[in-house]
Amino acid sequence: MALIVQKYGGSSVADSEKIKNVAGRIAKAKDEGNQVVVVVSAMGDTTDELIRMAQQVSEQPDERELDVLLSTGELISSTLLAMALESLGYKAVSLTGAQAGIQTDSSYSRARILCVDPQRIVAELEKGNIVIVAGFQGVTQDMDITTLGRGGSDTTAVALAASLNAEVCQIYTDVEGVYTADPRLVSEATKLKQIDYEEMLELASYGAKVIHPRAVELGQLYNMPILVASSFSDSPGTLICKEASMEVRNKVRGIAHDTNVAKITIIGVPDHPGIAAAIFEPLARANISVDTIVQNASIGNITDLTFTVAQSDLVKAMSIVGPVIKSIGAKRCVTDSTLAKVSIVGTGMQNTPGYAARMFRALYEQGINIQLITTSEIRITCIIAEDRIKDAVQALHKAFELEIA
Amino acid sequence: MALIVQKYGGSSVADSEKIKNVAGRIAKAKDEGNQVVVVVSAMGDTTDELIRMAQQVSEQPDERELDVLLSTGELISSTLLAMALESLGYKAVSLTGAQAGIQTDSSYSRARILCVDPQRIVAELEKGNIVIVAGFQGVTQDMDITTLGRGGSDTTAVALAASLNAEVCQIYTDVEGVYTADPRLVSEATKLKQIDYEEMLELASYGAKVIHPRAVELGQLYNMPILVASSFSDSPGTLICKEASMEVRNKVRGIAHDTNVAKITIIGVPDHPGIAAAIFEPLARANISVDTIVQNASIGNITDLTFTVAQSDLVKAMSIVGPVIKSIGAKRCVTDSTLAKVSIVGTGMQNTPGYAARMFRALYEQGINIQLITTSEIRITCIIAEDRIKDAVQALHKAFELEIA
Repeated sequence: MALIVQKYGGSSVADSEKIKNVAGRIAKAKDEGNQVVVVVSAMGDTTDELIRMAQQVSEQPDERELDVLLSTGELISSTLLAMALESLGYKAVSLTGAQAGIQTDSSYSRARILCVDPQRIVAELEKGNIVIVAGFQGVTQDMDITTLGRGGSDTTAVALAASLNAEVCQIYTDVEGVYTADPRLVSEATKLKQIDYEEMLELASYGAKVIHPRAVELGQLYNMPILVASSFSDSPGTLICKEASMEVRNKVRGIAHDTNVAKITIIGVPDHPGIAAAIFEPLARANISVDTIVQNASIGNITDLTFTVAQSDLVKAMSIVGPVIKSIGAKRCVTDSTLAKVSIVGTGMQNTPGYAARMFRALYEQGINIQLITTSEIRITCIIAEDRIKDAVQALHKAFELEIA
Repeated sequence: MALIVQKYGGSSVADSEKIKNVAGRIAKAKDEGNQVVVVVSAMGDTTDELIRMAQQVSEQPDERELDVLLSTGELISSTLLAMALESLGYKAVSLTGAQAGIQTDSSYSRARILCVDPQRIVAELEKGNIVIVAGFQGVTQDMDITTLGRGGSDTTAVALAASLNAEVCQIYTDVEGVYTADPRLVSEATKLKQIDYEEMLELASYGAKVIHPRAVELGQLYNMPILVASSFSDSPGTLICKEASMEVRNKVRGIAHDTNVAKITIIGVPDHPGIAAAIFEPLARANISVDTIVQNASIGNITDLTFTVAQSDLVKAMSIVGPVIKSIGAKRCVTDSTLAKVSIVGTGMQNTPGYAARMFRALYEQGINIQLITTSEIRITCIIAEDRIKDAVQALHKAFELEIA
């Protein structure tokens, strides 16, 4: 008898009909002889609705209170799912994050899981129950409720799977798996049967919105296989695991892209120690994530510094960078909010030269100008004009022969 | 520095504006130098909405799951109220029933409070916090969430007040206090400054929907003064306490009425032991509350048996009584669903004869027929036609000179 952990996202439980559909899928896994633990997100837009309610009573809601408020979304969906299973004739019990033993630090709204004490889950499984755990939440040592922030329910699922020593963690969502590129941009995009944790991390961070990177990292740490599949079909999905099959010849596994990119260039920066800190520390304090950073070679102790942020953070970032420019004696600042990122990802790339050249040529042949380049061991990313992103993804998909992956 | 417990009902926190209004009232109590603990109900119709959601996924929702689901209503209102207080510049913290130390038995949907361990509340008060407690809920020894059923938040408030040794428990609602009769029926009805626990129990049970009897009983047990007042005005309200002022000359304190009354009469019942049990046990199992029961003197071992139920329970009650009639060999059954109850209440009545006679005469002078009579030590109740209830309440209010109470 295998123990499996399943996770269903908010769109999979958005209304009572969808909850019944999910209950049917869980029942099937139980009928197949498995012990089943299910992690569930809040229904549809519940979390946004709760945030809206908080903003109506307070301009800056207290984070501790907000976490208790938001945690109710998953309590609602988990109890409804347990009820739906019981009405199908299955024994089921819902557990809060606290009851499920998800212990976190007290960083409200972005708590980190410290440990999982699954004894209540184990006891309920032994009674023959299907266990439904409210995702996205945990509890501090002082019994205060926390939420895990972005990707919280994915992280809950993988953490439980690891602590229960489950056979697999199945993440059910509204996409069918991980593709070689976004199928809306590339009609020839194919679904990957397997992908390596590292590759998935690069794809996930760079815009393939299937599973949160934090959950993939946790899966990698505990070597927990994660299946990503659709809750609306029986299509097999993509397995994220330690090593993609040795059969995989193609060394580029996928093309990721992200159109939420803005560039800030500070011109005439005096090139001496401490300048970078003076610019980036205030941005970090404002919780603005800075992505690519490029500094040109210095000419006469004056240099230019370029970095990217999310388009949605541009106005806030500029309100911080403006005063800093003056204080460090830089000349001026220009911005461009019409950019996008395109990346090729694959573990095979790290030992094989020539991928970068092939990428640049494919973009050049489409007449696409590359504004910035950044690389990791298993990824090459180019920043280009946003209106050319579709051409770029299609050209790269073809250049690396991913349609026959 | 006094410690006071306040409770705000669902209509007082129905939307964000009302929550802000309540926050202002709590702030005022704090500014007056008090330590303040607040118990809050779910916003407006939240509980009904959650029940509707449960019914959409299950015809008979599991009670344990339903309790977790319903408990979210009070978590939402308590966190929003804490946020609203903080945005006014006050230190506030919300606590779940479990965090507030409300320990109950495991009778889901109607749990009883076993004990209150207020150490977390005390610790938060010592930090200078206003403490907002989610009403209506508690936790079992196994850390399972329960709800307290009808009157739950009132009961939470009085239980906390007792365990914290508070100076007073203030129940804020959408009425201004306890009146000598329903002001919608009797324009001369006056608000009582004080009322005895026993009197309030009789008034509350018999239709004056101001505070739940269960909370009054608890108040009486711990001798905790309970103020009932409006959350929408600064009117002083009614204090429920051990003994109404000695100044109170008038021995009838109020007229209660209830128009939700149906009568069932079983005709030709064989009069032997076990018959009453045969009739009332199945009704009790179906959770139908039977009120007045009258059995006529037996003639030739055959008697008639009459009892009342809520009009809303009549159809269900008849579906149970029908088969029982046959099995016990009774003749037939007649029902009347157009009835109402009217009661006079007052502790002074118990030692003074003549109240019943005065009541019957006042009704007779209005040409109102009395169908059934039932009494307690401090109450006399008559069942009359529903369409005469206004006349009856007005006539009794006048007969007992309550307009000058």
